[in-house]
Amino acid sequence: MKQVKALVFDVFGTVVDWRTGVAREFAAFLPAFGGTDLDPFALADAWRALYQPGMEECRSGRRPYTRLDVLHRESLEKVLAANNITGASEGDLDHLNRAWHRLDPWPDVVLGLTRLGRKYFLGTLSNGNIALMANMAKRAGLPWDEILGAEPTRAYKPQPEAYLRTAEILAMKPGEVCLVAAHNGDLRAAHAAGLATAFVARPTEHGPGQKKDLAAEGPWDMVAESFVDLADKLGTG
Amino acid sequence: MKQVKALVFDVFGTVVDWRTGVAREFAAFLPAFGGTDLDPFALADAWRALYQPGMEECRSGRRPYTRLDVLHRESLEKVLAANNITGASEGDLDHLNRAWHRLDPWPDVVLGLTRLGRKYFLGTLSNGNIALMANMAKRAGLPWDEILGAEPTRAYKPQPEAYLRTAEILAMKPGEVCLVAAHNGDLRAAHAAGLATAFVARPTEHGPGQKKDLAAEGPWDMVAESFVDLADKLGTG
Repeated sequence: MKQVKALVFDVFGTVVDWRTGVAREFAAFLPAFGGTDLDPFALADAWRALYQPGMEECRSGRRPYTRLDVLHRESLEKVLAANNITGASEGDLDHLNRAWHRLDPWPDVVLGLTRLGRKYFLGTLSNGNIALMANMAKRAGLPWDEILGAEPTRAYKPQPEAYLRTAEILAMKPGEVCLVAAHNGDLRAAHAAGLATAFVARPTEHGPGQKKDLAAEGPWDMVAESFVDLADKLGTG
Repeated sequence: MKQVKALVFDVFGTVVDWRTGVAREFAAFLPAFGGTDLDPFALADAWRALYQPGMEECRSGRRPYTRLDVLHRESLEKVLAANNITGASEGDLDHLNRAWHRLDPWPDVVLGLTRLGRKYFLGTLSNGNIALMANMAKRAGLPWDEILGAEPTRAYKPQPEAYLRTAEILAMKPGEVCLVAAHNGDLRAAHAAGLATAFVARPTEHGPGQKKDLAAEGPWDMVAESFVDLADKLGTG
């Protein structure tokens, strides 16, 4: 970690609790459309389940880079149709689609990032688009120095370009950049691209019965319990 | 201005005093290379004079988009050669080239942006690249919500794409975005692209004898004396 100058963060799951936040928004949305018998957490999981297939269309080259807000909107409409929710206006749908802009961070995040930012350049390396990430940061007070990731690099993780072009934009060598993530698969791809890696477990990202990503599963440079623990371990005061 | 949701800022000249900052760095650099008889302000002006020709190579299509740090480095080497400054190491040159990352804001900027950020999304719309803008912001405490401009849009102002793609990344209509700039030419191009416009004069950007951009020269939506005055006029508390 000694050569690391920038920490770049996975966001959905690592920084913010997307499942609780999206379920909260479904719970507010459903009653007006007769959906009070539906489980908002199940709908959040169903929406998220269409995340990787949507990006895969772009990764495979079958579709040009399309920002996540657009992919989210398409998958939201599928989830609503599958649950017979009809009659939502364009404004309703747009508001619900922006649930991802209004996610709350895990409790350790703002303090941890604030401390880490005293020593490191802090960026996002998310598959979220710039407006999504920037709106989220403004609402939640996330002190990013810069929003990077899919939209500036025009590549979706785990494509190597997503990691390598992020380092290039920062004018840093890959080894000067460390990915912080709660997902071993993301860290594996970053490691293969030459980035440093730090794992922070988020054992309730997928709810109380989560079975994966409960522990580090690779030769990651750092393993921490939280962003505050990461700041302690990196000596950022 | 009623429909405006985001303020995007020209940076060199409008936000930061590039001439004083670059001259200060030349003054520190020159003695080690026998350049004590040279005027650091003249060197700053000479370096800046190569700014538009460098970008014009990219705008014209003769050269692909090349980030400003690279163009700055090429023009710095020309300025030094023209003044018979030789013997600087790669480290010396890189450090001096990053003078643009270490520019100070005008005195009203941090307070004005902090107040404006309570009501508006704040972005950069500069020809500077992301790392340059982000390093500057971190050092100077500029509270941007997002760094936009030339590198994400792959276009140099005053190309229309620089303005239009910035609005597109923000997922806003051009008229929901207002360019704040000290340069009438920049505002003219933004206005032509459909953006709202705000002029803030910086009458000493080019030193005590400045002759251009002393006053608004177009139908700009707002004219303010400073960023604090702009915050007052926009009612941002």
